[in-house]
Amino acid sequence: MNYPNGKKNTFVHEKTSAAHRGMELEKEINMTNSRYLADDTAVIHKKPTPVTIVKVDYPMRSAAKITEAYFKLPSTTDYNGIYKGKYIDFEAKECASKTSFPIKSIHQHQMVHLDAVARHGAIAFVIVRFTNLDETYYVNAGDMTGYVRNTDRSSIPYEWFREHGILIPYNYIKPVDYLKIVDELYFKETVNE
Amino acid sequence: MNYPNGKKNTFVHEKTSAAHRGMELEKEINMTNSRYLADDTAVIHKKPTPVTIVKVDYPMRSAAKITEAYFKLPSTTDYNGIYKGKYIDFEAKECASKTSFPIKSIHQHQMVHLDAVARHGAIAFVIVRFTNLDETYYVNAGDMTGYVRNTDRSSIPYEWFREHGILIPYNYIKPVDYLKIVDELYFKETVNE
Repeated sequence: MNYPNGKKNTFVHEKTSAAHRGMELEKEINMTNSRYLADDTAVIHKKPTPVTIVKVDYPMRSAAKITEAYFKLPSTTDYNGIYKGKYIDFEAKECASKTSFPIKSIHQHQMVHLDAVARHGAIAFVIVRFTNLDETYYVNAGDMTGYVRNTDRSSIPYEWFREHGILIPYNYIKPVDYLKIVDELYFKETVNE
Repeated sequence: MNYPNGKKNTFVHEKTSAAHRGMELEKEINMTNSRYLADDTAVIHKKPTPVTIVKVDYPMRSAAKITEAYFKLPSTTDYNGIYKGKYIDFEAKECASKTSFPIKSIHQHQMVHLDAVARHGAIAFVIVRFTNLDETYYVNAGDMTGYVRNTDRSSIPYEWFREHGILIPYNYIKPVDYLKIVDELYFKETVNE
């Protein structure tokens, strides 16, 4: 099950496998990140959901209880961390449509953030899952923000992902093994397959 | 006020200045990070406070309201981001004592996290402010975790910070200008002062 040398089968993407259906993208990424962390491959975490806390009760002898809070718009992406000395930053989105990805799924300031970190030398990308096609794409952040800046459309066609994205391999242990793609794109010489 | 070439006065640490008394460390770091971001010097953010959300109301026509939530122990540090292509990761703590810093202020898994990111090539550190001395120290994460691993004490003496820490310069625009220290330690050749 656990191939220590990473040589076996990890690139096989079983489109028809029902194994990871129903698990959401976020859970699968968290699972993958936990495995990266356990293997000491990378340290990448999801940021907590930003909330504005308005009221907190401090009952005697028990934990502080937040009784009023509101969701805040995130000012950055959800995931960041470090891999092979490089700063990693990405956003992940599910998409129910089979034909296009709504641009409004990613907030404008998240796009600005992705461009900013890329400018400073980050490996920045977006993970998009077409849930009804069971396909998960790695898209270079600059490619996506460039597309969005230069279009009047409100969505990015599926074909664009086929052309500019890279399918992320699925495996049971690392359901969204996006560092395989990072290796191919940024650390080619260190991959011996 | 805004010295574009960064040449003037930024290293002056006015110990007796009351200017930034009363503002907490977190606010000052956020201010500093905002300035780094506005100047496109670095992209470093505080992570949201982690909470476990238990109950959410969805009132008609208004924003979702969280009515029950609890604070969670953070599994990482509070701040991370990118500067000159390097991954930056740090924790910041205030300390009321004038003589020592309680080790329990920093959670064990935060120490483990700091060691992990440092192992992967991060610039990892801890910012400690002795509020009653009005001194704010930059401490290399490995120095602090090393001290903690090798002591039976429950606190780190103030003298240790004088010896192993570096005072972080204060200025009105960037109240906790920690990247000055990072420049000195990691990018010496690029500093022209």
